[in-house]
Amino acid sequence: MYSPSIQKLIEVFSKFPTVGPRTAARFVFYLMKRKKEEIDELITAIQNLKRNVKTCSLCFNPFEGTGELCEICQNPARDKSLLCIVEKETDLVALEKTKKYKGLYFILGGTVPLLRKKEKKKLRKKELIERIKKHPEIKEIIIATNPTTEGETTALYLERALKPLNKKITRLGRGLPMGGELEYADEETLRSALEGRK
Amino acid sequence: MYSPSIQKLIEVFSKFPTVGPRTAARFVFYLMKRKKEEIDELITAIQNLKRNVKTCSLCFNPFEGTGELCEICQNPARDKSLLCIVEKETDLVALEKTKKYKGLYFILGGTVPLLRKKEKKKLRKKELIERIKKHPEIKEIIIATNPTTEGETTALYLERALKPLNKKITRLGRGLPMGGELEYADEETLRSALEGRK
Repeated sequence: MYSPSIQKLIEVFSKFPTVGPRTAARFVFYLMKRKKEEIDELITAIQNLKRNVKTCSLCFNPFEGTGELCEICQNPARDKSLLCIVEKETDLVALEKTKKYKGLYFILGGTVPLLRKKEKKKLRKKELIERIKKHPEIKEIIIATNPTTEGETTALYLERALKPLNKKITRLGRGLPMGGELEYADEETLRSALEGRK
Repeated sequence: MYSPSIQKLIEVFSKFPTVGPRTAARFVFYLMKRKKEEIDELITAIQNLKRNVKTCSLCFNPFEGTGELCEICQNPARDKSLLCIVEKETDLVALEKTKKYKGLYFILGGTVPLLRKKEKKKLRKKELIERIKKHPEIKEIIIATNPTTEGETTALYLERALKPLNKKITRLGRGLPMGGELEYADEETLRSALEGRK
């Protein structure tokens, strides 16, 4: 239905996370209406991403600059006895925004999928265990996976895998989110809120 | 929070329709994980869009090929007495998929916005009136804007603007969508369904 160049770009955009063919088509028509300079800006930004951004060899956080370590891992003020495991980059950024956590991170790169076995290989489990073994200064490991079914499964999987390393393992606290109302909270959240009362 | 190249691309993607900063960040991390060939594929597809796709001088439908007219406008089998006005390219494609409409189209390029006056200029109202004047073979004009508040306002605005041209003006039929259930239909739809009963 669409002409070949439009169809091709719709297909490429459809592979983006959260994007279906309808949204992909909207992206294409949006780009068609942009000026040449705006298209060049997009292309340059994509190319610079690939050119400039490296992955931290310690925590797998993307960064720009010299050396092999990101700013967090390079920072001497960070508490090296704390290691927080997150599923993905955006989770790290969310925790950093709280300005409450001063330890280091490890980006796992995903969750243990409930069905697809293949995906499990993508998790940086081996890299995580190596890092903990190489760094005896780590005293506490915070498993900060998301409170979703896959996140929970991953947390249990990690707890089991890390147990032989004999470190203190903790999880993020559960309860009612700020602004949340009791009557709309699910039972699991309410149960955690009761258990975690203080 | 993000490094400059990541931040820049998040900003560019945030301007895409339906995309907020969170989704834009997911796009960036998705691209960071792609292989060089996949990135090149994306860039080439964007460049080809700009290089190969032209806009039909008659209906403003995007097309690839020689000449100034798209395949629909070039097709001698299409009924030149019918002109269907749609808001945007994807609406044209939706109508074409029905294989029911054999007339020509005109892509208006948007709706009359309820608040933002500036946007009104982007509508191809002048081009639409010129086209109808230049083509006396047009007997019926179908205003096929969306059944949204903005679409309705645009339809009324067009009806008023096209009235002096003395053509038959029609609108798409209203009623319950296939698979829709009465109990979930809004009053306006139900009212239209009653009025349009046959």
